[in-house]
Amino acid sequence: MGKKGKRLYAGVDLGGTSLLAVVTSGKGKVLGAREEATEVKRGDARPVIEQVVRAVRKAADKAGVEVKQISALGIGAAGAVDPDKGIVHTAPNLGWDDVPLSKELEGALGVESFVDNDVHVAMIGEYEKGAARGARHAIAIWVGTGIGGAVIVRGRLHYGCRGSAGEIGHTVIQIDGPPCKCGRKGCVEALASRTAMERQVREEAKNGKKSAALKIMDEEGKTRMTSSVIAKALEARDPVMREVYERAQHALGMLTANLVNVMDPEVVVIGGGIAERFGDDFVAPIRKTAYENFLQKDGREKIKIVPCALGERAGAIGAALMARSRL
Amino acid sequence: MGKKGKRLYAGVDLGGTSLLAVVTSGKGKVLGAREEATEVKRGDARPVIEQVVRAVRKAADKAGVEVKQISALGIGAAGAVDPDKGIVHTAPNLGWDDVPLSKELEGALGVESFVDNDVHVAMIGEYEKGAARGARHAIAIWVGTGIGGAVIVRGRLHYGCRGSAGEIGHTVIQIDGPPCKCGRKGCVEALASRTAMERQVREEAKNGKKSAALKIMDEEGKTRMTSSVIAKALEARDPVMREVYERAQHALGMLTANLVNVMDPEVVVIGGGIAERFGDDFVAPIRKTAYENFLQKDGREKIKIVPCALGERAGAIGAALMARSRL
Repeated sequence: MGKKGKRLYAGVDLGGTSLLAVVTSGKGKVLGAREEATEVKRGDARPVIEQVVRAVRKAADKAGVEVKQISALGIGAAGAVDPDKGIVHTAPNLGWDDVPLSKELEGALGVESFVDNDVHVAMIGEYEKGAARGARHAIAIWVGTGIGGAVIVRGRLHYGCRGSAGEIGHTVIQIDGPPCKCGRKGCVEALASRTAMERQVREEAKNGKKSAALKIMDEEGKTRMTSSVIAKALEARDPVMREVYERAQHALGMLTANLVNVMDPEVVVIGGGIAERFGDDFVAPIRKTAYENFLQKDGREKIKIVPCALGERAGAIGAALMARSRL
Repeated sequence: MGKKGKRLYAGVDLGGTSLLAVVTSGKGKVLGAREEATEVKRGDARPVIEQVVRAVRKAADKAGVEVKQISALGIGAAGAVDPDKGIVHTAPNLGWDDVPLSKELEGALGVESFVDNDVHVAMIGEYEKGAARGARHAIAIWVGTGIGGAVIVRGRLHYGCRGSAGEIGHTVIQIDGPPCKCGRKGCVEALASRTAMERQVREEAKNGKKSAALKIMDEEGKTRMTSSVIAKALEARDPVMREVYERAQHALGMLTANLVNVMDPEVVVIGGGIAERFGDDFVAPIRKTAYENFLQKDGREKIKIVPCALGERAGAIGAALMARSRL
């Protein structure tokens, strides 16, 4: 670990709904944290950037350190990011286009800053401190509004030639399948994301099948099918939600088998809101389908398929560790 | 390059139909070669192993060197291979099960020997000397009786935790699609291999559509739809063959887009018999579909999708280079 182990780092997980800033030790131990609801203003990145700056200052306060003691800051944003240039190209949930985030944060905080996408940093967290620890090769599948991923090869996050590796949500697993918001058909995101689940529940409702899930959304004033809505509908034994949920798990199992056949990792980590909430109850059926669909049968003994272990702090801790490794 | 560059290496491409042995310089220059029809005897690996040994001796003769001057031998076999142990687990075209190939060759030739699968070694050849030269990350898609693949990450072949990375032929791209011989449905191999093309032509024939392809197979006494049969049927403007061929290219384009979205390589190399024969005529429609299906639009400028460049010697040259790198 050496000198870097004794330094301080800041990590930020920046989502469209909430943001979490942490200050950590060089080993990824959280010394102070600050969570806030993200105050998105469409077409203007400044308010959110200022909010991030304030949250980092507050996390440093809680850690009892000064911002100038922080060696580097990492931030993970949900969207298409250029990690080399530190630019967020498009972040639909933030309404951002081509925001030079690392430069802005460096200007405001005086701390060297690195940008990556949210799933990349969450996987760095899980790889260093969580469910993928000790593996040489690993894959992350993050299920939320969309589906994101990350690939670790020989102990390092694989960026690819444009920094865009891991876009597993837009691998097509059903040619001519249901339409995806990316414009194509049969992407795994169109089959197994929360958005896909919501679409399927609404379709069933149109066909006359009653679903508690839509009622719960209405009652709670939710405009989208959140993980909590899915959880409550499953707890209420909503048969439509159950069927849609199991269909999504099946698609995720097929995706997992595909990725294992191509990359042969020791570990596949399933993360995101549903996995955080349900843990292995969510993952077990995915694992079963994957095992049935591996080409090589010894995968059952040799390849672990597990839920994420760090919960909602994975992204922020991983962002701090990412900054550490890139400094 | 150093000392290794001045050494001599042997490489063998071992297929069920033919085998090619070469002796090369450390830089992969072929100094002598020997090609033979493989004399497969089901249930007995010995005759083929002895044939490989003789072919290597003959290639050395042609190169004007002695076998004992060869530093290492590499061999690529079509099948499931354990590269660490040097064992061919299953090679359906050879009728082999668990053959300790590297040990057998070392015993007979007195040369340290390394085993890998046929597409892995072909990609090493293309990466070092052919179409993927200079790339940092690359992917191979090899289309033949089946569909195989290889993944290069940061300049090195990616083996994965069991040495089985690159099994792209059994990624499912059409859930509930046509049956694959692996027992599943909708694998790309069931949609776009020569075997899949033959199955589709036969189905169309059953439905009353006449196909020149089947007539050509009969006339030439071919039991399988070879690349040469496909070529002749296309030249004869067989509409059934054309449609089936284009469908396969579409599936390969979708596969390419999937792999690029996940791995973000600079180059995708399409190889195998059809690609060797048709070159970019085969690859151009695959490239078009792939470009239309990349998630990130800059892929069109940044990612090359090209036919293999070394032709049928890719495997043998790559096997020699593989031996060199593993020595």
